[in-house]
Amino acid sequence: MAKYVIGIDFGSLSGRAVLLDVATGEELGSSVMEYPHAVMETEIPTGKKLPHDYSLQHPQDYLDVLQTVVPGVLEETGVSPDDVVGLGLDFTACTVLPTDNAGNPLVFSEEWQDEPMAYVMMWKHHGAQKYAEKLTEIAKEQGEGFLDRSGGRISSESLIPRLWQIAVENPKLYDAMDNYIEAGDWIVWQLTGEKTRNSCAAGYKALYDVKEGKYPDKEFYKLLDDKLENVVEEKLDGPVVPIGSKAGEINIRGAELTGLNPGTAVAVAHVDAHAGVPGAMKSIEPDQMLMIMGTSNCHMVISEEDRIIPGLFGISKDGIIPGYIGYEAGQSCVGDQFAWFVNNLVSEELKQEAKEKGIGVHELLTEKAEKQKPGEHGLIALDWWNGNRSILIDNDLTGMLLGMNLTTKPEDIYRALIESTAYGTREIIDNFEENGVPINKVYATGGIPMKNAMLMQIFADVCNKPMKLAGSEYGPAIGSAVMAAVAAGSENGGYDSVDEAAKVLAKEKETLYVPNPENVEIYDKLYKEYNTLHDYFGRGQNDVMKRLKTIKADVANKE
Amino acid sequence: MAKYVIGIDFGSLSGRAVLLDVATGEELGSSVMEYPHAVMETEIPTGKKLPHDYSLQHPQDYLDVLQTVVPGVLEETGVSPDDVVGLGLDFTACTVLPTDNAGNPLVFSEEWQDEPMAYVMMWKHHGAQKYAEKLTEIAKEQGEGFLDRSGGRISSESLIPRLWQIAVENPKLYDAMDNYIEAGDWIVWQLTGEKTRNSCAAGYKALYDVKEGKYPDKEFYKLLDDKLENVVEEKLDGPVVPIGSKAGEINIRGAELTGLNPGTAVAVAHVDAHAGVPGAMKSIEPDQMLMIMGTSNCHMVISEEDRIIPGLFGISKDGIIPGYIGYEAGQSCVGDQFAWFVNNLVSEELKQEAKEKGIGVHELLTEKAEKQKPGEHGLIALDWWNGNRSILIDNDLTGMLLGMNLTTKPEDIYRALIESTAYGTREIIDNFEENGVPINKVYATGGIPMKNAMLMQIFADVCNKPMKLAGSEYGPAIGSAVMAAVAAGSENGGYDSVDEAAKVLAKEKETLYVPNPENVEIYDKLYKEYNTLHDYFGRGQNDVMKRLKTIKADVANKE
Repeated sequence: MAKYVIGIDFGSLSGRAVLLDVATGEELGSSVMEYPHAVMETEIPTGKKLPHDYSLQHPQDYLDVLQTVVPGVLEETGVSPDDVVGLGLDFTACTVLPTDNAGNPLVFSEEWQDEPMAYVMMWKHHGAQKYAEKLTEIAKEQGEGFLDRSGGRISSESLIPRLWQIAVENPKLYDAMDNYIEAGDWIVWQLTGEKTRNSCAAGYKALYDVKEGKYPDKEFYKLLDDKLENVVEEKLDGPVVPIGSKAGEINIRGAELTGLNPGTAVAVAHVDAHAGVPGAMKSIEPDQMLMIMGTSNCHMVISEEDRIIPGLFGISKDGIIPGYIGYEAGQSCVGDQFAWFVNNLVSEELKQEAKEKGIGVHELLTEKAEKQKPGEHGLIALDWWNGNRSILIDNDLTGMLLGMNLTTKPEDIYRALIESTAYGTREIIDNFEENGVPINKVYATGGIPMKNAMLMQIFADVCNKPMKLAGSEYGPAIGSAVMAAVAAGSENGGYDSVDEAAKVLAKEKETLYVPNPENVEIYDKLYKEYNTLHDYFGRGQNDVMKRLKTIKADVANKE
Repeated sequence: MAKYVIGIDFGSLSGRAVLLDVATGEELGSSVMEYPHAVMETEIPTGKKLPHDYSLQHPQDYLDVLQTVVPGVLEETGVSPDDVVGLGLDFTACTVLPTDNAGNPLVFSEEWQDEPMAYVMMWKHHGAQKYAEKLTEIAKEQGEGFLDRSGGRISSESLIPRLWQIAVENPKLYDAMDNYIEAGDWIVWQLTGEKTRNSCAAGYKALYDVKEGKYPDKEFYKLLDDKLENVVEEKLDGPVVPIGSKAGEINIRGAELTGLNPGTAVAVAHVDAHAGVPGAMKSIEPDQMLMIMGTSNCHMVISEEDRIIPGLFGISKDGIIPGYIGYEAGQSCVGDQFAWFVNNLVSEELKQEAKEKGIGVHELLTEKAEKQKPGEHGLIALDWWNGNRSILIDNDLTGMLLGMNLTTKPEDIYRALIESTAYGTREIIDNFEENGVPINKVYATGGIPMKNAMLMQIFADVCNKPMKLAGSEYGPAIGSAVMAAVAAGSENGGYDSVDEAAKVLAKEKETLYVPNPENVEIYDKLYKEYNTLHDYFGRGQNDVMKRLKTIKADVANKE
């Protein structure tokens, strides 16, 4: 009798479940549901207006997703709950909410419905910016080790600054909550009754040192605020459990929510991008990178090397695959940059041509650009339209384009923008390798790599690394299914390790983009130019980009 | 009885005559004719194909113009030849042709009609490039003073390299010619029987040192080529005469060509851009600049200061206005750069919006951009889409744009491109002032300043100089009319000096663009940034632009 696992990916706007055959890895079906409240950025359901840097969600939406997509995928595939041996899930992070002791979100009670901070603060909520900055400052003074693992600063997209904001700005809310918890861990709690803290979110988003097995000392929290001295015991209760473990089993409430049988294994929650790794790599080996390419790029590296690498966003043991050090780097602007060009600077003639050919403008520009050899357009760009995440960690950097003459064509600029993002990725890879973490193989996933072979070949040529495509658009959901199979264990038809499970369940495409030596040679020269400009504008030799921003802000303030 | 003067401007594609009332300055009419052969770049009338860097004209076209536009303007205005007291003309330069001793173009004889070099080599003819380079090399070795007056090198847009090419590649043609002469001087010769060489073309285009009153020594020419040793006596015969002088009087042939009376005063020919100065400045004073703004910018400065200024294209006594040192600087790419943007990167939506408003795309972008304050868009550009003429004299430089983010709009880029050309002009002005030639007042003429008030205000603010508009689109033709009035002299109803004539005949608009102190302050900061980037990319700190060109050329050669 075949056995099945379900992986659920809770993204920014929707949740999606996939159902896989454990023994064959076949993906039998999927079911998706958008969050009814989506992202609340201007007001909450009571009508209360939000400050401009707020991004909230409603926890009921996540329960609605559970109640829809799990029965949905069972119905679609005709699989009986009796044959489902495990459930795994991943979630955006840091996406956190306050609950009472029983796990009920405070916002479910009438008392807190009009308080924005009682809702889920989703990953891109920046309301706690000033607390993040103060925290970074104090951590620097104290020489806290977590800074080395977080790119030298703690962003507002992490847990403690948000809790600190609540402690200061609404102490009653702070006192009223028994838990401040990642939404992924909260869902696991709802399904199993087990309150766990997954090692991925704890390590990357909550200052937890997975290697040492501890949060910062009380003294540090006290330096932030007296009220925070015992924050770990008071608000972060629950064991930090390595991803790839079993969190518990579906209980009665979990069965009601999902239609699965009580006793079904549930994996510890994972963070969405990170769950993409076991979803995309059939052979889990050290020194591999997964690039998740979309509006921005995220680079996940697993390695046995334990190094402090400057310019990364996160370094954590057990952060991606249990047993490995997980490194996280990123580029702020990839697809966004190509979209900016197409939305703002594409002529009537090109739009007309695309229409006549029945293709999109991106496809048309790619069609024109892919006829070119590297170096043919004579351009070079810095891919900083949205700042630079790795390796400079500087939001105040801006885009640059150089080499134009009167014959420069739109497709030249389009190709140069694509190349600039490849150079940006090479900076990241070189930085890993210079700091002792080799990158042997690169996987790519996300909407862009699937659609644009030219882009993938450029990335392979620029980075001089073979690049393999992930086989599924739903990488994180597949990765969660891998974790579900491990949670089930071999005695129940699952697997005993992530390695074994990924071999069967992960999805790779056959396509391998192999660097073309002739192109590599030219791109080596061009990358050298990129790197010089990268350092000139990005490392303080000429801070013109920052000064232009200051002038711009001064002008805006005067009005 | 009112008296009149006629000025004729021989441009690249047509000739235009204007007729002015000498006493009042009123422009009564104009007449224009396009050259029947236009510019010959692919073949000559015999069907012979041309090398790719050839740009030739047919001398018969100029005679046709004379026979058309002078009678034309007389007819249009109803003025009798009896009341025309003077004729002046300006011509593109270096635009040269070989003639026999009587002034007949060699190409008029059947023997030479199939020889491209027997035609007029117009200013933009680059066929003699390698001779220009060899000449520069030898001049450098010899420490020839004319290099300091020509931006450190002699371009193929000058006389001696062309004559050298003829001497080497067709010695029979070289031997057959009795004169190699600027087309402007040739026309004067046709009209008056007097063979003169105007001081403007001689100084800027034929190595003549107007201050010392001499060409380079025989020894120098001999170093180039034995055949050239006596080139001055053999081919450049005829006195160099200051512009602003009378060349002679209409003779019988001149009367046949024009319908003017024999005895009518004819001014020494002038060079077209330079003739724009007396056409645009009512008060001829030292340290004034005329900017001729079109696809590229040309900056003409008159001064009493006699300095060697690096980065200029031409420095010559009597080169613009008699008695003054005339300096010539330029920007390679102005209107061309705005046109590149509009032709390549303007979206369907913007085109549609312009259509609905019944205006052009340039107007629409200007309308949007002029709502901005300086610094508001956060961008800075280097205006090198077509290389840099002054002050870097480097064709291998290319464009740069910096500061883009995801909210950057087309009108932001459009404004940044305009500003970059203003910064480029400020580099030129600062360079003059740092080298001892103050610029007290700037005049602007050409298609762009008339149409775009925002651009003029930006130029005034960036350069912190009041800017005045010329009053006529036909500046050079007006300037030639000024010279005609001086050639006539006061005894014939004209004037005795350029100064007096310009006071009445030159055309200024009332509009004065006055720098706005608030904008000046911001633009000072932005210009500082431009200047740093200008030196970084333009003075060898980072030759990335040249290296990209080399890579591009290598790729092209491989194919």
